[in-house]
Amino acid sequence: MKDFEFYNPVRVFFGKDQISKIVPHIPKDVNIMLLYGGGSIFRNGVYDRLKEVLKNFKVIEFGGIEPNPSYETCMKAVEIIKAEDVGFLLAAGGGSVIDATKFIAAAARYTMGDPWNILAKKGPVMGALPFGSILTLPATGSEMNRNSVISRRSTGEKLAFGSVHTFPRFSVLSPEAAGTLPKTQVANGIVDAFVHVLEQYLTFPVNAPLQDRFAESILITLIEEGPKAYANPADYDAMSNLMWSATMSLNGLIGCGVPGDWSVHSIGHELTAFHGIDHARSLAIVQPGLWKALREEKKGKLLQYGARVWNITNGTEDEKIDATIAKTVDFFESLGIKTRLSDYNVGPETIDKIVARFENRKWLDLGDRGLTTPEITRKALEYQL
Amino acid sequence: MKDFEFYNPVRVFFGKDQISKIVPHIPKDVNIMLLYGGGSIFRNGVYDRLKEVLKNFKVIEFGGIEPNPSYETCMKAVEIIKAEDVGFLLAAGGGSVIDATKFIAAAARYTMGDPWNILAKKGPVMGALPFGSILTLPATGSEMNRNSVISRRSTGEKLAFGSVHTFPRFSVLSPEAAGTLPKTQVANGIVDAFVHVLEQYLTFPVNAPLQDRFAESILITLIEEGPKAYANPADYDAMSNLMWSATMSLNGLIGCGVPGDWSVHSIGHELTAFHGIDHARSLAIVQPGLWKALREEKKGKLLQYGARVWNITNGTEDEKIDATIAKTVDFFESLGIKTRLSDYNVGPETIDKIVARFENRKWLDLGDRGLTTPEITRKALEYQL
Repeated sequence: MKDFEFYNPVRVFFGKDQISKIVPHIPKDVNIMLLYGGGSIFRNGVYDRLKEVLKNFKVIEFGGIEPNPSYETCMKAVEIIKAEDVGFLLAAGGGSVIDATKFIAAAARYTMGDPWNILAKKGPVMGALPFGSILTLPATGSEMNRNSVISRRSTGEKLAFGSVHTFPRFSVLSPEAAGTLPKTQVANGIVDAFVHVLEQYLTFPVNAPLQDRFAESILITLIEEGPKAYANPADYDAMSNLMWSATMSLNGLIGCGVPGDWSVHSIGHELTAFHGIDHARSLAIVQPGLWKALREEKKGKLLQYGARVWNITNGTEDEKIDATIAKTVDFFESLGIKTRLSDYNVGPETIDKIVARFENRKWLDLGDRGLTTPEITRKALEYQL
Repeated sequence: MKDFEFYNPVRVFFGKDQISKIVPHIPKDVNIMLLYGGGSIFRNGVYDRLKEVLKNFKVIEFGGIEPNPSYETCMKAVEIIKAEDVGFLLAAGGGSVIDATKFIAAAARYTMGDPWNILAKKGPVMGALPFGSILTLPATGSEMNRNSVISRRSTGEKLAFGSVHTFPRFSVLSPEAAGTLPKTQVANGIVDAFVHVLEQYLTFPVNAPLQDRFAESILITLIEEGPKAYANPADYDAMSNLMWSATMSLNGLIGCGVPGDWSVHSIGHELTAFHGIDHARSLAIVQPGLWKALREEKKGKLLQYGARVWNITNGTEDEKIDATIAKTVDFFESLGIKTRLSDYNVGPETIDKIVARFENRKWLDLGDRGLTTPEITRKALEYQL
């Protein structure tokens, strides 16, 4: 395995009625901003419970954070934070709300010009407001990592950052609140987590058997428990197992000492930026296409994944790889997630735009071993037309 | 799964030449105490590298920490710390050195009488000196948790404590340094880690499939990689995989949301206290005996463990459980670890003493569901005579 550093100080409270446990972990005598999205927290009980638990704090509310949260929305929150002297942020919702909160926390303390620099120029983040989260949607893993992805509507860009200052101080993981989610969001969460694992696992063998088996453990659990949570989000056991799996998919653990790919995300982000396709759905389109485009280069891990996760052990190597890709696509489709560009009315002109954008940005060697060239990106997307 | 809290802020540096990375994580302008054991750090390169990296600090050395570190030794370090105004502790070695350092760190700041109270009366630990570790022996997991076990030679007691103040600030995991270990210590480490996993996994099913699979992942990796590291400790890849497996066995992760047992440890500690049997060897004796004594109560998980870890799927349930226990014993014995009390010249009179001690302490219901009564302890040990 490769050398690595691992550090993850996020305190997790998992289970039923955990919200009361957050109070000792919030600084005393500060104003709190409660950030949320479209208002699901009013329906799943989280808002009422927070009001009760935070009754001794001044709480300013900032709702309406959209999926694929925008720089424009985030900067509105930053203005209010400065005007109202907010000292702690509390995100309640899914990955979009938590990602936005991370950027807002960093932007509120950013002193080197436009905070967009944090994303566009990777300007150093020297500090951030402290924040915590209440997770109500298993998917992105943002509740237990430092990463954030923010979109700028005016330019159609979607960029990521992360800093040692943007770990949540705590995250409450609430399978109960997630029990009220619409099925489409549960499906998105399953696929999002699944591809997070694949980005760190389906690269090339580096003799890291524990990391491989941890990754396979998550994939198998998502395959077994995900459909139960999709069929009935209020199934507390299934939702709990899905939620913990999604958190473990992207908290740094399975990436220790192994290469990452992440080019499925880079390409998928463009489909979201250009066409507003849900993040998870963009990944479900790109992942099979990229495997087809790099089937020789990723053969070792594709065969291992097929054998250990899908029990595909018969046939030639080519047949096994075909079956493995087909099984993955079937799994996504069984959750109502389409995997073809045409399913989303996207045609070849978008492929041209994405390839041109990558060339302009000099993103010429994405992915593990730099294999995802603009040409491979084109091929991967053409397979999915 | 059960509700849980998870928090582990230990920063891990894993791999080759990681020692230079510790400097930014040590407070400036403090005196450092370097704690070590029998002197292996002079032979494995760690001492020389530390001297180089810490050349701008005043470093006071405290060597000679014994296996199953003693209260008496620890208190000598505490005296020096107070006399020399030490502000940071650095443990270099295996679990004994790190456990001792945790107790020393807490004892140096303890203001409520004899620090033995921390262990005997579970007196609250209100603070501790900050400390880090350089791990040279994969085994106990102490490098990434808050727990410590200390023995008192004068009374033959061996007791544990842990506090939020006794997480290492950082731990360097050095498979290279472990490459110079004697084979017996590698064997001990493999068995120690293996039983740590079993204590958290082999209880009863609570619908926590991800935690189960993570536990099985570690067990399988120990079975596959352990013997390679045992045969040749300088096999860097095998030792790396063993080291990361041992750390993951006891950093809190696989215990999230599942019951623990830990009665193998409670019984094993007494064998060490009375007869000086190596910690890992004491566990290898007790584990199979306890399964035999509780085979009906632990049937569900014994069958799952046998099937998934040892591929035991044929025969009646009783035959499968017998085969599973035999496989585990064979694995321990293949590493040169004996599993019978008679192998260590221990007879039935020790069983009487252990049972009497547990009764005196009112330890009447150890283990998961309180199943390990004094009578079960007696049975478990009698199976291993």
